[in-house]
Amino acid sequence: MTTGNALIAQGGGPTAVINQSLVGAIIEARRHGAIKQLYGARHGVRGIVGEDLCDLARVTTAELERVARSPAAALLSTRDKPDDAYCESILRMFKKYDVRYFFYIGGNDSADTCHILSVFAQHSGYDLVILHIPKTIDNDLLVTDHCPGYGSAARFVASAFAGLALDTRALSGVYIGVVMGRHAGFLTAASALARRFEDDGPHLIYLPERPFDREQYVTQVEETVTRYGRCLVAVSEGIVDASGEPLTASLLPSEERDAHGNVQLSGTGALGDALREWIQSALHIRRVRCDTFGYLLRSFLGVVSPIDAVEAREVGAHAVRFAVGTGESGSVSIDRVGDYAVAYSLQPLTAVAGKTKQVPDAFIGDDGATITPSFLDYAKPLVGALPVYDHLPFHPVVKR
Amino acid sequence: MTTGNALIAQGGGPTAVINQSLVGAIIEARRHGAIKQLYGARHGVRGIVGEDLCDLARVTTAELERVARSPAAALLSTRDKPDDAYCESILRMFKKYDVRYFFYIGGNDSADTCHILSVFAQHSGYDLVILHIPKTIDNDLLVTDHCPGYGSAARFVASAFAGLALDTRALSGVYIGVVMGRHAGFLTAASALARRFEDDGPHLIYLPERPFDREQYVTQVEETVTRYGRCLVAVSEGIVDASGEPLTASLLPSEERDAHGNVQLSGTGALGDALREWIQSALHIRRVRCDTFGYLLRSFLGVVSPIDAVEAREVGAHAVRFAVGTGESGSVSIDRVGDYAVAYSLQPLTAVAGKTKQVPDAFIGDDGATITPSFLDYAKPLVGALPVYDHLPFHPVVKR
Repeated sequence: MTTGNALIAQGGGPTAVINQSLVGAIIEARRHGAIKQLYGARHGVRGIVGEDLCDLARVTTAELERVARSPAAALLSTRDKPDDAYCESILRMFKKYDVRYFFYIGGNDSADTCHILSVFAQHSGYDLVILHIPKTIDNDLLVTDHCPGYGSAARFVASAFAGLALDTRALSGVYIGVVMGRHAGFLTAASALARRFEDDGPHLIYLPERPFDREQYVTQVEETVTRYGRCLVAVSEGIVDASGEPLTASLLPSEERDAHGNVQLSGTGALGDALREWIQSALHIRRVRCDTFGYLLRSFLGVVSPIDAVEAREVGAHAVRFAVGTGESGSVSIDRVGDYAVAYSLQPLTAVAGKTKQVPDAFIGDDGATITPSFLDYAKPLVGALPVYDHLPFHPVVKR
Repeated sequence: MTTGNALIAQGGGPTAVINQSLVGAIIEARRHGAIKQLYGARHGVRGIVGEDLCDLARVTTAELERVARSPAAALLSTRDKPDDAYCESILRMFKKYDVRYFFYIGGNDSADTCHILSVFAQHSGYDLVILHIPKTIDNDLLVTDHCPGYGSAARFVASAFAGLALDTRALSGVYIGVVMGRHAGFLTAASALARRFEDDGPHLIYLPERPFDREQYVTQVEETVTRYGRCLVAVSEGIVDASGEPLTASLLPSEERDAHGNVQLSGTGALGDALREWIQSALHIRRVRCDTFGYLLRSFLGVVSPIDAVEAREVGAHAVRFAVGTGESGSVSIDRVGDYAVAYSLQPLTAVAGKTKQVPDAFIGDDGATITPSFLDYAKPLVGALPVYDHLPFHPVVKR
């Protein structure tokens, strides 16, 4: 059995339940004799190379439970994507602090970092067990049925659209909501999860998995307005044109790219303003509104899927168990084994690292602007029960 | 005692608890013999002149309770602001249906409609009791201590900023959130209500009550970043320049005005994009993000202040009691009589109609970019208890 110190860090965008995984891992790690010191690195890999470490053994269980209920990376996060030299620095620090277990909570970029590190460690003959603890609101990791963090963010999106459906019903017109999601439309698809009545909306849902056509969009909105007197639209920020280029890229005066080479899509209203303008100029509808949800959905205080919180905790705990029990590196996967029940398994890092899962074809309607009942079956258990809203029954009075 | 039929309608923007007032009024109205038929008009005053009426007596209590818990005007709403001819039409319909009690749930524009109607009825010698039932997320009505709908929308804003504070703490940089509020900054001020730690943010809060100066804004953001390594900013969509002109008006290519002559401020990302761009170009900070909250905060499913829901119900019920009991027209006011306790009173329509309350000077810091503890004392009871978040206690490891 590998014996030595362990280090935990968090990378990438925060989620509502990422700290559940952190606390799950810490509490489980304390039970295992193979783990001596338990370090936390602040700001992810940046805190490792900068030796910005803290002693997680000194945090009380009561403190941990409060942190677990708090959104956004409590160990603080980073967007750094380590290159080879960076990974060498990390490994040097691991050797210096006798770190034999590394738990990295993050998305597919973080899994990639884990993979590179594990290869480096192997080459240098250093005994190191690396566990990727998945988290991402985008739900875009391969292998796992779904990702911790998605259920809570999806709950936000569903709750927002349920209210906006009633709002648009009350005041008519067209409303467009732009939702996070670069390559995968899982979050945008969640806009339909709280829909109760056939005419509630969102009536149109555009995902990055299908090319977005401006003419078709205008036509589909027009048809919906004709039918229902209003139209509620959900759009992924990552929608692409026929050539596969993100629409936002062509709308922004200057592109901003992060360390991973990604165009910055969030934190700008440009796409929403264009989507609104196209409807207003083509259809001359008086009331056309658009909001870009942006960062609200990933750390909103109090909007948490109960099942997401439980699973995030479990994924953190299982990471430690798998690491100590098998001595193998890997990524923790949530496997759906019932309706609804899950099991946890250890998967090779290479199966997850740097790869992206998209919304499967079976979840997308033939018109490219709706989602199927299969998606609802898939996603509803992840979001948990939502408040039940209702329309006022209409008993018309005969005109005098 | 005035005896005849009653009519209820909802006007203006939806809120999370506007249906509590509707249901409060309906259930109370059923108890009074002075009220014969109980009509609802769909889409506010538009449904009155269009004779789009429904029979509210036929809705069951169980149905009403589900509606009460639903956000956004269940009777459907309107942005119509009746002129004299429109008011004459309404009065004609009231006579036709023997409406002697009119309950209009809305903001100060709706109160204005109530006032005009009451004058017209008096002039024509028609016995009509008109009750304005206040609602507005903006909290900008005179006389009343606060408005039903504000507490729930403020709860959304507080919850959003609490999460964004943790998010910005995890990833650093500058985050700007643009919040609804044309003339009054009550909603934007609510961004501070969930703040626990001194460095949590929002660090800067800009309201429409103080002229916004771009240079000063950049300087204040720079100072905050120097101090905390990050900056969280809350901005009202209605912020004005030194001449009193809304900043959004100068940023939009074409102005859109509603029937009330107001420039359209919501549903566009223009202000947010400018606020972000000004920081990026002046300070060269890598990570600057801005979101415009838009319409999410007024009808989000499940984010409701418990006290707001109770008071909205009470305000609806008291409107009926005051109307039948006194035979006088007026607006229902919530009067703070304890810490925290309220009473309800009937106020003249003229005290509320068409007038706007702003955030008092005592609630705004001398620097024009913060709010005072007095505001927190005022607003915290309205929002209700929020989930408690926490930072991870930091026990540093000595560098080797």
